[in-house]
Amino acid sequence: MAAKRIPVVERIMNANDQVALENRRLFDLYGVHAINIMASPGAGKTALILSTIAALNGRRRVGVIEGDLASDVDAVKVRRVGVPAVQINTGGGCHLDAPQIRSALEELPLKELDLVFIENVGNLVCPVGFALGEHTRLGIASVPEGDDKPHKYPSIFSHIDALVVNKIDLLPYIPFDMDEFQRLVRTLNPQVAIFPLSCVTGEGMDAWIHWLLGLTEGS
Amino acid sequence: MAAKRIPVVERIMNANDQVALENRRLFDLYGVHAINIMASPGAGKTALILSTIAALNGRRRVGVIEGDLASDVDAVKVRRVGVPAVQINTGGGCHLDAPQIRSALEELPLKELDLVFIENVGNLVCPVGFALGEHTRLGIASVPEGDDKPHKYPSIFSHIDALVVNKIDLLPYIPFDMDEFQRLVRTLNPQVAIFPLSCVTGEGMDAWIHWLLGLTEGS
Repeated sequence: MAAKRIPVVERIMNANDQVALENRRLFDLYGVHAINIMASPGAGKTALILSTIAALNGRRRVGVIEGDLASDVDAVKVRRVGVPAVQINTGGGCHLDAPQIRSALEELPLKELDLVFIENVGNLVCPVGFALGEHTRLGIASVPEGDDKPHKYPSIFSHIDALVVNKIDLLPYIPFDMDEFQRLVRTLNPQVAIFPLSCVTGEGMDAWIHWLLGLTEGS
Repeated sequence: MAAKRIPVVERIMNANDQVALENRRLFDLYGVHAINIMASPGAGKTALILSTIAALNGRRRVGVIEGDLASDVDAVKVRRVGVPAVQINTGGGCHLDAPQIRSALEELPLKELDLVFIENVGNLVCPVGFALGEHTRLGIASVPEGDDKPHKYPSIFSHIDALVVNKIDLLPYIPFDMDEFQRLVRTLNPQVAIFPLSCVTGEGMDAWIHWLLGLTEGS
């Protein structure tokens, strides 16, 4: 039965990649840079988006696509700071896919944006297998999750362009070896840009914002 | 294509349930109580298993099955305290399934055990759909993940028998409304037993151990 299943899944993957390519063309047409944010539940995806919008302070025009199994609590938080946000509810789905993004893009004013954050479903496993049309793949790890996560979830750490290590304000209260963690991540992914920061205290935000501004220059 | 896919997935689900039933019979034959532990990456699944083994202090004979995409770091930690542990590596798989547990059971000395903890892959979405043959489904939430998780991942909070709220030692440093969190959880699952605790300070462990001893009485 498993042998029969593989071709079907492959066909679905290809259909997803095809739509991802169309999404990418649409982003490019409007000069919008899209960032797919992947992390565990509670790593601080929405917190990073909100802190980044505040720190950018209008230097980039931001839109947000929020992916969750259920509820619109995240989209509501983003709209409250005056930024357009579309909520996708996946039902039981454990990741976003390209067709969901295509639908969401119909509701975003792309002409008026430079940067779109796509907050994927909180999950360190499934989202990494599905291209959405993004230019940049951002992972977020957080200090309370522990410094051993690259051992256990190597795929996601291998397939990202940048990694935010969030909640460094909790380092005094939690055993987390930042050097060892970064060493592990770089073993899997030597090129990845790593930004330890705290969305609460703002420590480390400057380096992240500097990188983000460089990434989206000319957008 | 999606319409064609559904029957294949259903057949696989049924095959899984069939093996789960066989696993359950095997556990029952040896008088072993099996607990399927599901949580986000870094919520403290291994920490809870280790703290529980220490707190039980021999009152139950424990075995552990560790599920991860890669590595055997968790099984090594468990074996270090003298408890038999089998590591399952799922490769890219986002959850454990019943056939994996059946294989692992061949390596556990069931005759000498009262209690088996099955640590599922860190994921709040996929594990909930796959029965393993367990008697009890335990969820772990952790304070740093935030108090809004039941809104976003309602399925897992609806399908567990008990919920540990871990890392309460971090409550002074993180905004987390424990009453509101528990209210949300009970809206989804009125019967669930909830145990706020800290594996670091030991606070709240007594109630959890008391409940666990009651659950496995006569094992």
